[in-house]
Amino acid sequence: MYKDLTVEKFSEDLASKAPVPGGGGAAALCGALGIALGAMVANLTVGKPKYAEVDAEMRLRLADGDRLRAELIALIDRDAEGFAPCAASYALPQTTEEEREKKRVALQAALKTASLAPFEMMRKCGEAIELLEYFAKNGSRLVISDAGCGAALCKAAMQAAWLNVRINTGMIEDPDFKGQMEAEGTALLQKYLPMADVVYAEVEEAIRK
Amino acid sequence: MYKDLTVEKFSEDLASKAPVPGGGGAAALCGALGIALGAMVANLTVGKPKYAEVDAEMRLRLADGDRLRAELIALIDRDAEGFAPCAASYALPQTTEEEREKKRVALQAALKTASLAPFEMMRKCGEAIELLEYFAKNGSRLVISDAGCGAALCKAAMQAAWLNVRINTGMIEDPDFKGQMEAEGTALLQKYLPMADVVYAEVEEAIRK
Repeated sequence: MYKDLTVEKFSEDLASKAPVPGGGGAAALCGALGIALGAMVANLTVGKPKYAEVDAEMRLRLADGDRLRAELIALIDRDAEGFAPCAASYALPQTTEEEREKKRVALQAALKTASLAPFEMMRKCGEAIELLEYFAKNGSRLVISDAGCGAALCKAAMQAAWLNVRINTGMIEDPDFKGQMEAEGTALLQKYLPMADVVYAEVEEAIRK
Repeated sequence: MYKDLTVEKFSEDLASKAPVPGGGGAAALCGALGIALGAMVANLTVGKPKYAEVDAEMRLRLADGDRLRAELIALIDRDAEGFAPCAASYALPQTTEEEREKKRVALQAALKTASLAPFEMMRKCGEAIELLEYFAKNGSRLVISDAGCGAALCKAAMQAAWLNVRINTGMIEDPDFKGQMEAEGTALLQKYLPMADVVYAEVEEAIRK
């Protein structure tokens, strides 16, 4: 599984000609790194007398962050699995009219499958950005820069995941599926990219003082 | 070494209380993932008759991308090593006036050391963004989305690296060192963040068609 590759080897495989891991897998890992930085801030906040007031809430959010990190790591491999039917469809013969129609139907189903993992990444990155906003506001001041780094990484992960949704939905013919994915995806971008920017800017401002 | 951890374990260590890996290591890895996606585009372009016109230049840029990826991966561990003197300085005693002065001098030197790796990441991410601009414009249209993902990731990596430069220079007393790092860092941000945004936007536009 890709999650079991070393960091160095993963980057090598990403750079290779092989179709997976690709932008989707890189997005999932980038999102996992971003929320991991948030969890680090929370881990360095809980149990500290200075932050006793937020301790209970911080522990709950830390558990959410740990869950999200694990889910995003799992999405690296789910993304690769979701691409397999696409690769198989592209390889189908298309000599006769019947073969062409069979290939078209298979590819349409495969494109829907392939769009699911990157769409799920977008949702998870949104949740991660909300958590990072909380960690940046309420976490230990000593490590606030890590929450800002996390926000930048989760924003980029959501943007990268979006391109991977879009590359599939662009070829999907079913207007309902395509329309819903693109509308929901756009709504996620509109809500969370500016939120990530605010978290980053506030952290940059805070460490400037 | 951190580059030899599995992807999953690296994210776990990042989330832990341990000071390293932190935002700097995550930034270096994120930048390596971004330029790896660019190298993937180049690898899927070279040798194709359709792209014969750019083949020679593409191969040169691919070699640059491979070098940058390796350098950014190496910066994960260089960042951790660069932080060690800081951790050691913070642990020094500060009971007497003499101890306090000794600690101050040690910490000032350590902060300079700690700022070098994230600053180097910023430079490498800038080079990576320039390469990604080329790959997005001239690489195989079939994988152009990966160049867009790479631009988003390298932008975030540069932003995250900047916070890690800033957190150190904010405490550095030497006005020349501090001033030069902050001026150069700001110039890198001003040049390359908008460039990455343009690459991403152009890719998003191209795959919409």
